[in-house]
Amino acid sequence: MLSQLSARKAAKKICNGNITSRELVTDCLERIKQTDDKIGAWAFLDSELALTLADAADVMHQKGAPCGPLHGVPVGVKDIYDTSNMPTAWGTKCHSDRRPNTDSAVVDKLHEAGAIVLGKTVTTELAFAMRGPTRNPYNDKHTTGGSSAGSAASVATDHVPLAIGSQTNGSVIRPASFCGTYGFKPTRGIISRRGCLQTSQTLDQVGVMGRSLKDIALLVDVLAGHDPVDPATYARAKPNMLKGARAKVPVEPIFAWFDLPYQNKLTPAMQEGMEEILSLLGDRVERISAPNSFTDVIREHQIIHEYEFLENLGNDPTTSPEHIHETLAPKRKSAERISEKTYREALKMVSAANNYFTEFFCDYDAIITPSALGEAPLLEEGSGDPICSTIWTLAGLPCLSLPMLSSENYLPMGVQLVGFTEQDDRLLRTASWLEKQLA
Amino acid sequence: MLSQLSARKAAKKICNGNITSRELVTDCLERIKQTDDKIGAWAFLDSELALTLADAADVMHQKGAPCGPLHGVPVGVKDIYDTSNMPTAWGTKCHSDRRPNTDSAVVDKLHEAGAIVLGKTVTTELAFAMRGPTRNPYNDKHTTGGSSAGSAASVATDHVPLAIGSQTNGSVIRPASFCGTYGFKPTRGIISRRGCLQTSQTLDQVGVMGRSLKDIALLVDVLAGHDPVDPATYARAKPNMLKGARAKVPVEPIFAWFDLPYQNKLTPAMQEGMEEILSLLGDRVERISAPNSFTDVIREHQIIHEYEFLENLGNDPTTSPEHIHETLAPKRKSAERISEKTYREALKMVSAANNYFTEFFCDYDAIITPSALGEAPLLEEGSGDPICSTIWTLAGLPCLSLPMLSSENYLPMGVQLVGFTEQDDRLLRTASWLEKQLA
Repeated sequence: MLSQLSARKAAKKICNGNITSRELVTDCLERIKQTDDKIGAWAFLDSELALTLADAADVMHQKGAPCGPLHGVPVGVKDIYDTSNMPTAWGTKCHSDRRPNTDSAVVDKLHEAGAIVLGKTVTTELAFAMRGPTRNPYNDKHTTGGSSAGSAASVATDHVPLAIGSQTNGSVIRPASFCGTYGFKPTRGIISRRGCLQTSQTLDQVGVMGRSLKDIALLVDVLAGHDPVDPATYARAKPNMLKGARAKVPVEPIFAWFDLPYQNKLTPAMQEGMEEILSLLGDRVERISAPNSFTDVIREHQIIHEYEFLENLGNDPTTSPEHIHETLAPKRKSAERISEKTYREALKMVSAANNYFTEFFCDYDAIITPSALGEAPLLEEGSGDPICSTIWTLAGLPCLSLPMLSSENYLPMGVQLVGFTEQDDRLLRTASWLEKQLA
Repeated sequence: MLSQLSARKAAKKICNGNITSRELVTDCLERIKQTDDKIGAWAFLDSELALTLADAADVMHQKGAPCGPLHGVPVGVKDIYDTSNMPTAWGTKCHSDRRPNTDSAVVDKLHEAGAIVLGKTVTTELAFAMRGPTRNPYNDKHTTGGSSAGSAASVATDHVPLAIGSQTNGSVIRPASFCGTYGFKPTRGIISRRGCLQTSQTLDQVGVMGRSLKDIALLVDVLAGHDPVDPATYARAKPNMLKGARAKVPVEPIFAWFDLPYQNKLTPAMQEGMEEILSLLGDRVERISAPNSFTDVIREHQIIHEYEFLENLGNDPTTSPEHIHETLAPKRKSAERISEKTYREALKMVSAANNYFTEFFCDYDAIITPSALGEAPLLEEGSGDPICSTIWTLAGLPCLSLPMLSSENYLPMGVQLVGFTEQDDRLLRTASWLEKQLA
């Protein structure tokens, strides 16, 4: 099945003339037709449009146009990123008619790489609380996690080799963990958020899902770039992700394991799985008790997230409490009680956290930690707790979820590696080492 | 002398820790100090600022930050591109105090590649008529050509390995030809003009100068990219310039030589030089009589240029006739006589020209043609005629000037190669073959 190809291999085959983009996209659409009634990964998908875009990529190639690194390869895009040729409904029926005039930065970058936006993947409402219709590909009684639910599910089900999500707390790492894909949220500011639903200017970060380390590395290379419209991006050289994923470690890496404030919430399967990995790593891993401030970080994250969420979406009459889904309304209420002073204080934690990690990563190559508390919960139990991502997301550190473990119910569970700011290449190199070591 | 290094070699040495950016920049500043009283290439240069930027690049490198492809390498930027840390006076005393708040797209891209903007190079007034103080590095009684005068002169004098210019008619190719540097104006729309003085939205194009084919190819790779702010840029894959410059031709290329309407204006030295190259190429070159419409193209170019120039700068009270230099005033007068209808008609020539070349480049790899009518004229004779660039600039085709000839006065003269839209890599590959062939 062509739909099972890695993005890198598919692009190579298309550029070498071994297959066409139409053949690949046809296979992916067939796979979606067979499975998506049950999975529900797509918020918008127009097969005819997708094939037209594939044909256009093939015609360009025949004409001798330059081949981008993802030429003719279909990619799923979370339905919070603007697309000029598809609706962008932010996962809420309040905006079901929303049709942007322009493309978001990530969509522009995909086009520059020759990729095809196959369709828009399901997000929870406003990338926040209420879940969409997506179900876990491994067991449809279980959640995919949120908010990048459709992106994780579509990659896991071989609908697309790659998808773009976003993470304000744990919305890339958690669904990647639950669906058994790779998840990668690079350093804050590497990818522009222009044309993306803004829920929290401080915390919102772009992330990706794929089925191999090299694929997700390449996608981030494609998406990376300074953008004057997004003040979080920066005009300095970016780490070369693919080079990082391919590199050999100069010396065996040293990992840090924190005994974190939410340790006791881990499921027995996750605890056992992590212990097994730690014992295999032996003296390559050091156990450290987490600083007390980590508990504060989790609280400050919530303050920043809720305060900015209200600021960004509170004045939008279409998303007022009476229109919005009931699970989102209580969040609004709690946000309204946060004072500006409390918010300003919480913001100070962002640089404090970063300062802490500056020294920390002199001694360690990566933090090793669970991607989620355990396997994907049952649908009726919600979309799972993002707490395993909160500290690193607030600090803007690069986070990877590697599909390494599985639960007693045969559901996948991810192992998370966290690296230092702007050292995403070192993190990928370390991850590649870890994969080989545990293989 | 480090100042004589190619940009690629300099960046490699810095990234390998063999030299520091400070050492390189110090050498370049020393070279400028020795020569620039005579050359006058720089509109703004603050040695202290330049060294501070070099130190910052060195510190980043020591800290293990990613090395961009031009890490720590100084680049000259024509004084029509906004810089947030330097004045941007557009070559006119009307704007000598102009201090932009933000960086232009090309400056952002330089920063992303790790390069240092050493200073701002001299442009003719408003990138149009009246020349600045710059003199030809080969003979200071002669012009450098314009409008990218300082960019060409600074590269030719080993002040910087690379510089950025712009071309609305012949403002990159002509000064490159006169100063003996490589000049490269890629396909229209490959590089964003955000933050660049707009004189003609249809014709303005970014170009570069350097001392080797690979250097200018790399610089264009660094600068290339879609930008929603510049409607001429596009969200498709770009040709890989450096790969093109390094590639071997699959078969020996075929060149086209046009007997152009301005043929009789070429100096005897240029005529002889070109004839010699044509005879060396033998049956690899075909002589074609230019279509009659080429004469129209030159007229339509003038209409578009003057009409848009007035539209862009006519309402700016600071550049009104009484403030502006006397050589620019007559241009305004002739522009005021162009009707909108005439202008609209002229605009149709742009797509007509492109259509003509679409078929043309099925049969030929490149047009071979002079970069200028001859050697650099004496200062009192003006900055030279841009006519050898007009047709290709209007059509938006990629143009290269190769420093291959010299006049009886030992002044350099360029050979121009012109390729098809978005096939800049093929053009560079052809140029590389030609260089080896004639070496």
